[in-house]
Amino acid sequence: MERLPGFRDFYPEPLPHQDVWSADLRNYIFDTWRNVARRYGFREYDGPPLEALELYTTKSGDEIVGQLYNFTDKGDRAVALRPEMTPTLARMVAAHARNYKKPIKWFAIPQLFRYERQQKGRLREHFQFNADIFGESDPSADAELIALLIDSLRALKLTADDFVIRLGSRNAWHEFFERGTRNAERGTQTPDPRPQPPDPRPQPPAARPQPPDAAEYEFYQIIDKLEREDATKSDAKLKALGFSLDGVKEFIAAAKPTAELEVILKNLSARGLGDFVKIDYNVIRGLAYYTGPVFEAFDKKGELRAIAGGGRYDNLVKLISGGKVELPGLGFGMGDVVLTELLKERGLLPPFDAGLDAFCLIEDEALRAASLKLIHDLRAAGLAVDYPLTPAKPDKQFKRAVELGSARTLRLERGATGEVQVRQKNLKTREEKVVPLTDVNSLLSATSGRAGGFP
Amino acid sequence: MERLPGFRDFYPEPLPHQDVWSADLRNYIFDTWRNVARRYGFREYDGPPLEALELYTTKSGDEIVGQLYNFTDKGDRAVALRPEMTPTLARMVAAHARNYKKPIKWFAIPQLFRYERQQKGRLREHFQFNADIFGESDPSADAELIALLIDSLRALKLTADDFVIRLGSRNAWHEFFERGTRNAERGTQTPDPRPQPPDPRPQPPAARPQPPDAAEYEFYQIIDKLEREDATKSDAKLKALGFSLDGVKEFIAAAKPTAELEVILKNLSARGLGDFVKIDYNVIRGLAYYTGPVFEAFDKKGELRAIAGGGRYDNLVKLISGGKVELPGLGFGMGDVVLTELLKERGLLPPFDAGLDAFCLIEDEALRAASLKLIHDLRAAGLAVDYPLTPAKPDKQFKRAVELGSARTLRLERGATGEVQVRQKNLKTREEKVVPLTDVNSLLSATSGRAGGFP
Repeated sequence: MERLPGFRDFYPEPLPHQDVWSADLRNYIFDTWRNVARRYGFREYDGPPLEALELYTTKSGDEIVGQLYNFTDKGDRAVALRPEMTPTLARMVAAHARNYKKPIKWFAIPQLFRYERQQKGRLREHFQFNADIFGESDPSADAELIALLIDSLRALKLTADDFVIRLGSRNAWHEFFERGTRNAERGTQTPDPRPQPPDPRPQPPAARPQPPDAAEYEFYQIIDKLEREDATKSDAKLKALGFSLDGVKEFIAAAKPTAELEVILKNLSARGLGDFVKIDYNVIRGLAYYTGPVFEAFDKKGELRAIAGGGRYDNLVKLISGGKVELPGLGFGMGDVVLTELLKERGLLPPFDAGLDAFCLIEDEALRAASLKLIHDLRAAGLAVDYPLTPAKPDKQFKRAVELGSARTLRLERGATGEVQVRQKNLKTREEKVVPLTDVNSLLSATSGRAGGFP
Repeated sequence: MERLPGFRDFYPEPLPHQDVWSADLRNYIFDTWRNVARRYGFREYDGPPLEALELYTTKSGDEIVGQLYNFTDKGDRAVALRPEMTPTLARMVAAHARNYKKPIKWFAIPQLFRYERQQKGRLREHFQFNADIFGESDPSADAELIALLIDSLRALKLTADDFVIRLGSRNAWHEFFERGTRNAERGTQTPDPRPQPPDPRPQPPAARPQPPDAAEYEFYQIIDKLEREDATKSDAKLKALGFSLDGVKEFIAAAKPTAELEVILKNLSARGLGDFVKIDYNVIRGLAYYTGPVFEAFDKKGELRAIAGGGRYDNLVKLISGGKVELPGLGFGMGDVVLTELLKERGLLPPFDAGLDAFCLIEDEALRAASLKLIHDLRAAGLAVDYPLTPAKPDKQFKRAVELGSARTLRLERGATGEVQVRQKNLKTREEKVVPLTDVNSLLSATSGRAGGFP
């Protein structure tokens, strides 16, 4: 019996087969994400992996259904395995926003699911680090979120040589689109990419723009695909909307930061993170709900898909709550799959083993009961200890201790006057010590030395 | 938009509503499970939450489908959300058993799903701590597993006054059933519960019995329901199989441990865990695949459903692998829902907050950039630090620091000669200290004191 295509089994290391994933590596990534989020004052939440289908169609339209694991449950409900976390989060925040002081800073590590036509090696699930801030429309919140993203990657030992955050702006593109549309109305086909004099007509507020209409959203989709799609094709699509590829490219090349992007850059520089960010209007994000700054983390060699992406979505809570709750929001998602590829490629994975502090050899079966007591006391004191469950030859036991990567061996033995004592051997230094069995505390200090010490 | 019935949202504390669950409490339980498993030398694994439906029908028969979240995916595969972890684990172990040294000691904390007819408060998902051992048929493995279960509960501050492990044996009931069937063949209706002289006919080996036949499995189901079902009904069912309730009750009351149960009890007593276990043949476990010792953890007041349950299943890997791999196995599962009820009832939940080491007040906006740099350095050193994202009144900032339960506040200020210094205030002792901004290391030691200290 086999697992479903596109799903992963996670095994303890050393891995038995190249086709499986490392549970230890996954935990290392999860622990790092959790630890950095905690340092930033983000709190963990979680929601159901199964939600009403409507939660996704409301946000993304019916076309998303083709990519979902959706079905009808035994209670005749249209349901889907979550393809992303943001709708669940918006639902949760909308339900209880008033009970939390703002800003709300939350994170989660959900497993997400997409049914895509099977391609070789293409997965149908992944885990994603999601961090979000609600209740703050100032770009200082965007800076805090991007700093968390940068430090999450740095905590995995990636540097400014390995990755960069490309920072764009839906607002900048919104203005570009509006200008182009107005120019088209006046008979000019391509908007002028050079800075424009202020438009005397009343402008929509820069913050919290409304969701884009169909033409604007189509325009965003073309920009989003620009780096992947054939230039002639992009140009034709842009022309149909009254724009041109040249005009768009000139606007991207100018890369004039908006006022809010300036705030973000300055804020990140104050933290010493300026080297990790650059303005890049190629980044616009495909999803419909973004409203302000948007960003993606890329490996600098440009060989992999985006490592992470996010941005501001000031209308989503309102949309999901049916207009009941208005709350600005922003967030990012970072998947475990591209990240794992990057860490592997850069040789940044630490070695993993069982993390045993001690392996207790039982060579004299008359001392098994006393050994079990010692093992239990050491475990109760916080040490990771293993031992042979059944009688085995001494050399086989010792081999097992080495295979498990134990820091040391312990062995009960009879001393000169018949009293039971513990012989401990450091498997790295080969150093041996003998301590009385009666004094577990002295044993704890004698056996200390493994990274992290003892509690 | 609402979550699906029977699913849970997990929020950070303080909880906004009685209808939601605590993400902090969930993490506390998960961390405890992981920590104890690590001390026992168990390694973490995980598998897909979605599996081929066949994986469950093979093990449990087609009747299980009525309780599953099952559907047909877009590739026409019959699939199901996992209702338990053991089939996935058996599949994973069967696939790569030869690559791991035995015994294999593994654990996981999967989310599991069952579609049951909706009852008030009845959940359709829960998380379950699963620990299993493969490759060791000696009852010393059963003792190691039960010790892990006991210590997992003890690590949550539960004592021998709170819970007990009731230990039964499929082998004991198998012998009882065989004896009864043989007596019935000889014309005696009820088996004699007293110890029997050895049967001269060849006996099946005590270890690795074959899966029970239909009548025997039905008999086990009756025993499993004995404590919940009407006595007259149980008696009638038993009589139909050639047994009687009196005979069964006498056998349970005698509670003679089998040889393997004796080994388990002795082993646990050597560890100092004897008080946590008692022989109780009422425990037989409902699932078909158990073959040897079986056990359940109960709260001593007997108010809740079982906290955990498990046992030996020496034939399951063979069954799941289609006969290709033979490997004895045993394991237990402990759900988070009953456990949470028990911890709440016993008042054993620690308080939860954001765990902030410091909240940085920014009263002088001219010092915001310098504050951001300090915050970043402290976070990089491992501290959890928060701050006001935007300008706010000093009293509002301080109130926020208190609400978040921060251990202390930090504030940049100008000293007598204009140099920037850091004033730190311990929010518990109200003690204040001033250190130079230039010396983050001295600040780190000056601010130390929160539980756990600094890295």
